[in-house]
Amino acid sequence: MSIRIGIYGYGNLGRGVECAIKQNPDLEAVGVFTRRDPSSVKTKTGIPVYHVSDALNMVNDIDVMVICGGSATDLPEQTPYLAQYFNVIDSFDTHAKIPVHLKNVDDACAKSAKTAIISVGWDPGMFSLNRLLAGAILVDGKDYTFWGKGVSQGHSDAIRRIEGVIDAKQYTIPVESALDAVRGGSNPDLTARQKHVRECFVVAQEGADLDRIEREIKTMPNYFADYDTTVHFISLEELKLNHSGIPHGGVVIRTGKTGINGENKHVIEYKLTLDSNPEFTSSVLVAYARAVYKMNKDGITGAKTVLDVPPVYLSSKPREELISTLL
Amino acid sequence: MSIRIGIYGYGNLGRGVECAIKQNPDLEAVGVFTRRDPSSVKTKTGIPVYHVSDALNMVNDIDVMVICGGSATDLPEQTPYLAQYFNVIDSFDTHAKIPVHLKNVDDACAKSAKTAIISVGWDPGMFSLNRLLAGAILVDGKDYTFWGKGVSQGHSDAIRRIEGVIDAKQYTIPVESALDAVRGGSNPDLTARQKHVRECFVVAQEGADLDRIEREIKTMPNYFADYDTTVHFISLEELKLNHSGIPHGGVVIRTGKTGINGENKHVIEYKLTLDSNPEFTSSVLVAYARAVYKMNKDGITGAKTVLDVPPVYLSSKPREELISTLL
Repeated sequence: MSIRIGIYGYGNLGRGVECAIKQNPDLEAVGVFTRRDPSSVKTKTGIPVYHVSDALNMVNDIDVMVICGGSATDLPEQTPYLAQYFNVIDSFDTHAKIPVHLKNVDDACAKSAKTAIISVGWDPGMFSLNRLLAGAILVDGKDYTFWGKGVSQGHSDAIRRIEGVIDAKQYTIPVESALDAVRGGSNPDLTARQKHVRECFVVAQEGADLDRIEREIKTMPNYFADYDTTVHFISLEELKLNHSGIPHGGVVIRTGKTGINGENKHVIEYKLTLDSNPEFTSSVLVAYARAVYKMNKDGITGAKTVLDVPPVYLSSKPREELISTLL
Repeated sequence: MSIRIGIYGYGNLGRGVECAIKQNPDLEAVGVFTRRDPSSVKTKTGIPVYHVSDALNMVNDIDVMVICGGSATDLPEQTPYLAQYFNVIDSFDTHAKIPVHLKNVDDACAKSAKTAIISVGWDPGMFSLNRLLAGAILVDGKDYTFWGKGVSQGHSDAIRRIEGVIDAKQYTIPVESALDAVRGGSNPDLTARQKHVRECFVVAQEGADLDRIEREIKTMPNYFADYDTTVHFISLEELKLNHSGIPHGGVVIRTGKTGINGENKHVIEYKLTLDSNPEFTSSVLVAYARAVYKMNKDGITGAKTVLDVPPVYLSSKPREELISTLL
C-alpha cells in the first residue's frame, strides 16, 4: 500500500513535491490544499485540488502532510496547527527561529502522537546533516559553507524594490580562490566579501537613472554593501531567455587534523549542483515524508529534524537490501 | 563522566583510535588489548596494555570496545565474541560478507542486550551513508564511486609477492576525464579501466629482471590486468622518503533528474581527501563508539550499521545545541 501524501500549498515547492512523488512508486499524492479558489488551480499531474479548509475532513485519507508554505508567516502557524492532526514535514528555513518553531511543533505532536520533521531541505537540511557528521569525525577542525552559484530570491526581490527597476535576478557566486584556500587546508579566516561575490541582472525602466540604480544596489546594507557586486543592465527579453531558471547549490567543507600531534590533514566536502532549487528541496522533502510515516508507525513521535532521523527510514528499499547493496 | 573505551588490537587502526580518543574530551581510553606480550607494546599516549585474555575481566570498566582487527580472519570471530560482553564497533569491510557478519553479531547482541555497529569507516561507512542519502533524494539517477588518489594495501601486497620485489607501493588514481563526465551529468557507463589508473612504485632486487616484474604486475588478473598500470622502479631510500604515507580518499557522486519530464539535472557529491587512511577511519570509529554507547543507554540494542544510526548520537554536543548551531 502506498504512503498517502497531502501537499499543503501549491507554489514552486508544492509543484516540486507533486513531481517528486510521481518518481516514487511507494508514494501517492492525495491532492493539493490551497488558500485560493480550488477551481482556479490546475495541477501538473492532474491530482485533485482542495481548499485548505477541507484538510481536517481528510485526516483518515492522508498519512503525511507536506507543508509547502513560506517561512516568514505561513509555517510558524501552519506546521503546529497541522501537526495536531497529521504527520507533517516542512522546510522552515529561518535558522535563528528553528528552536522556537521546533518547540511549538513538538507541543502539537505531544497532543496528537503524530510525528513531524521540520526544516527539511538542503540548507537547513542536507548541509546541516553534513556539518554534524563532519564535525563529529574531524573534531579538531573548521567548517566552511559556500553557497552558489545560484539565484538568491531575497536579493533579487531587494533589487526589484528599487525605483526604476522592472525586474532583476541576483546570483550568489563563491570566490574560487577562497574555495581553493579552504580545500588546501590552510584554515583561512574569510570575510563575507572574501567568500562570495554577487552578480545582478537588472531590467530598468526606459529613461531610468542607471548610475543611481547601480549605486543603490551596491550600497544596500546587509544585502550588497559587504560584497563585491557586479550589475548588468539587460532587456526584459534577455532576462526571460537567459535568467528564468532557479539554479542553486553550494558546498560544505570541513578540514581537520588527526594524529598524536595533528600531523595529518583531512578534507570532507559535500557539494550540491542544482538546476532547480525548489525541485531539489522538494525531493528532499518527499524522502523525509517517507521517513516520518515510518517513524510514526514505529512509535517515534514528536518534532524531529534531519539530525534525528535514522537514514534507513529515507529509502523505499528494505533495510536488508540497503545493507547488502550500499554498505 | 567519560565514555570508557577499550581498543582491541593495536595496529595502524588501534593507534589511530588512541589518538582520536585524545581529541574527544568526553571519551576516555581505558587501554589496549593485544595478542602479543603486553610488556612488548608501548602505546602512543601511555595508556595501559592488557593481554586479550584479560578483556572479560574488565566488562565493568569498559563502555565500548572498538575492535581494530582485520576483516579476513579477526573480525568474523572477534566481533560476535566480544558483542556477548561489550557494546562494540568494528570496521568489517568485506562488502559481500557484511549481511552474514551482521547476523552473527546481532545474534550475539540478542543474548547480551548490547549494541554493535559494524562496518564503520569511510567505505563501508560514510560513503555507504552518502549513497543511501543521495539515492533516496534523487530517485531517478545514477551512482558513481571513485577511489583515490590513495594507497591500496591489497595491491601493494600483491606486487610484493612477485619474485625479485623487495617492497612496493600502489596508488589508485581516479581518471579526471571520467570524473568530469560524471559531474557533467552525462551518466556515462564506465569500465574499470575508464574509472581508475594504477601507479606502482617498486623496489627490485639487484640484478632482477625488471621487464619480467613489470609484465607480471601489468598482467596480474583481478588486480591489474583490467587497468592502465604504470610501473616505476625506484630505490628503497626513495620509497621510504616519498611513499611512506598512507593517504587515500575518493568521491561518491550521484547525478539525477527531477521535474515533470526530468528536465532538471542535479549533482550530489561527497568527497574525502585524507592524509592518513587509518587515522581518518579511526576518527569515524570513535564517533560511532560514542553513538553506540548512547544508543545502548536509550535501549536500542542489536547489531546496527551506519545506515541505522540517528546522526545526533555521533556528536558530543547536546541535541539542542546541534539544532541551534548547525541546522
